[in-house]
Amino acid sequence: MAGVAARLIADWGTTHLRAWALDADGAVVGRLTLARGVRGLAPGEAEAVFRQEIQPALRAAGLPALLCGMVGSNLGWTPVAYLACPVGAREIAANLCEVAPGVRIAPGLRTSGVLTGAPDVMRGEETQILGWMADDPARTRGRHFLCLPGTHAKWVQVEEGRIISFVTAMTGELYALLMRHSVLRGDPADAEDDAAFCAGLEAAGDGGALAARLFSARARVVAGGAPARETSAYVSGLLIGAEVAAAPALLGETPHTVHLLGEPALCDRYAAALARNGAACQIHDGEAAVIAGLGSISILSQKGDAP
Amino acid sequence: MAGVAARLIADWGTTHLRAWALDADGAVVGRLTLARGVRGLAPGEAEAVFRQEIQPALRAAGLPALLCGMVGSNLGWTPVAYLACPVGAREIAANLCEVAPGVRIAPGLRTSGVLTGAPDVMRGEETQILGWMADDPARTRGRHFLCLPGTHAKWVQVEEGRIISFVTAMTGELYALLMRHSVLRGDPADAEDDAAFCAGLEAAGDGGALAARLFSARARVVAGGAPARETSAYVSGLLIGAEVAAAPALLGETPHTVHLLGEPALCDRYAAALARNGAACQIHDGEAAVIAGLGSISILSQKGDAP
Repeated sequence: MAGVAARLIADWGTTHLRAWALDADGAVVGRLTLARGVRGLAPGEAEAVFRQEIQPALRAAGLPALLCGMVGSNLGWTPVAYLACPVGAREIAANLCEVAPGVRIAPGLRTSGVLTGAPDVMRGEETQILGWMADDPARTRGRHFLCLPGTHAKWVQVEEGRIISFVTAMTGELYALLMRHSVLRGDPADAEDDAAFCAGLEAAGDGGALAARLFSARARVVAGGAPARETSAYVSGLLIGAEVAAAPALLGETPHTVHLLGEPALCDRYAAALARNGAACQIHDGEAAVIAGLGSISILSQKGDAP
Repeated sequence: MAGVAARLIADWGTTHLRAWALDADGAVVGRLTLARGVRGLAPGEAEAVFRQEIQPALRAAGLPALLCGMVGSNLGWTPVAYLACPVGAREIAANLCEVAPGVRIAPGLRTSGVLTGAPDVMRGEETQILGWMADDPARTRGRHFLCLPGTHAKWVQVEEGRIISFVTAMTGELYALLMRHSVLRGDPADAEDDAAFCAGLEAAGDGGALAARLFSARARVVAGGAPARETSAYVSGLLIGAEVAAAPALLGETPHTVHLLGEPALCDRYAAALARNGAACQIHDGEAAVIAGLGSISILSQKGDAP
């Protein structure tokens, strides 16, 4: 019955929670965003927050719920074992962890990174990737490259509808650290300066010697006469430029096209950096991808439940 | 007269002050170290600290004094204009800024970086470099490469006794930020773990994709079973390894030998990274270099004062 909540889905991360109520057709009929990440939860508090804040707000008490993200870590409701890549929607749907009657958490993924050989992990982004695939059958055939910008950006290889491997770059976290605590301290509100962003992209060069390139953000102010208010956009350009310059190492090969999934303004910045490196890109809305991904896992898992 | 203080010298930086009393022969007869960097000074406070804390402690009231470092910036006693490279001891001695009778501040240096083309600056390290040169006449002939590790490490080209150019890498600051504020948070007291340091050096690879390599420090713990106490040494290896891998870009050519000036334990770590990259190195004590450098500038400037 369209319009009436039939299930609840949520991406419950380290710092934020985004939850939606879906009707029987998968259309969004309710939406909740809270700065109530698992990092701020006391041990055992996740279930209470879910029962007292999330379910009532979405009028979803008693409905089936599917959660993903850091809620499935030792900071969240309960630790859910990572699945080893390659992984597709079917494997995720078959490995949900039921933490209370009708409430399930999707497992995160682990891989052996193509960059250092060290393991790598994700929790939550896998549902966006599956949602992106679910949106167009062509994406479940052949080989594709994705980038999900953010605090911990993910560079992902997808093949024949499965996530083959990925590498995490903590670019967003580095940016926040530098703006808050370093000699480069700046106001992210100034980060809209396109010219300074492009100067940062240029200064990123091949992305090597990052600790030295970063200091240029300070020296160009104290010795080069650049206004200090340019620093945040310049550093943003530098960090994103350095990350994107390393795309061949992050993906295991030089990509022709990169699919960007995420917040549109941030994706635009990555698109500018990709263009500078001669790669094409397509931008996809990250929120729509989460909803589609959790929705399709939820449906798949219920099919699996049927006799 | 040996043993009696004849002059005062000090390297007064952002976070610390190191001052010495020298006798007429340049021998150290007094030493003062304070966590009293210019970053913590109120405007106009530098002179009072100098008069009330530094001079009396070293029994140096009324003696000629030569200061270097951030005390010559807008955070310190007074801003002293940067000298443009190339610069030797003579140019620095000829451009001291007298801030009170007998009290002089050495100018810092500026250059156009070989890495990004952006300007770069130093305040204080130039005296160490001059001290290193003063220690052996062979160092004032031909071309030499130096690295001064620290919060803001300097990679320096010296030719025929003059500092030709340099690049700053904020490796030490990045390390401190990551240990204090990031998801990699660790205890620098654990950083002595040599095996974890070497694993970090290996993971540094060619130094590109640093934001991704750094995340491996987290993933190897949550998904690879590495003990969390290894993280600080691993990240130290990663950051130093990435910096040193970029040495050819930081110096404008691949160095055969790098002279390391600084705190001995930190120099040892850089030496390990250089060895991994096939470069030879020689380690020199940073404190001895500061004293020799300030002493020689002080003497040169007094010769210049003579009719």
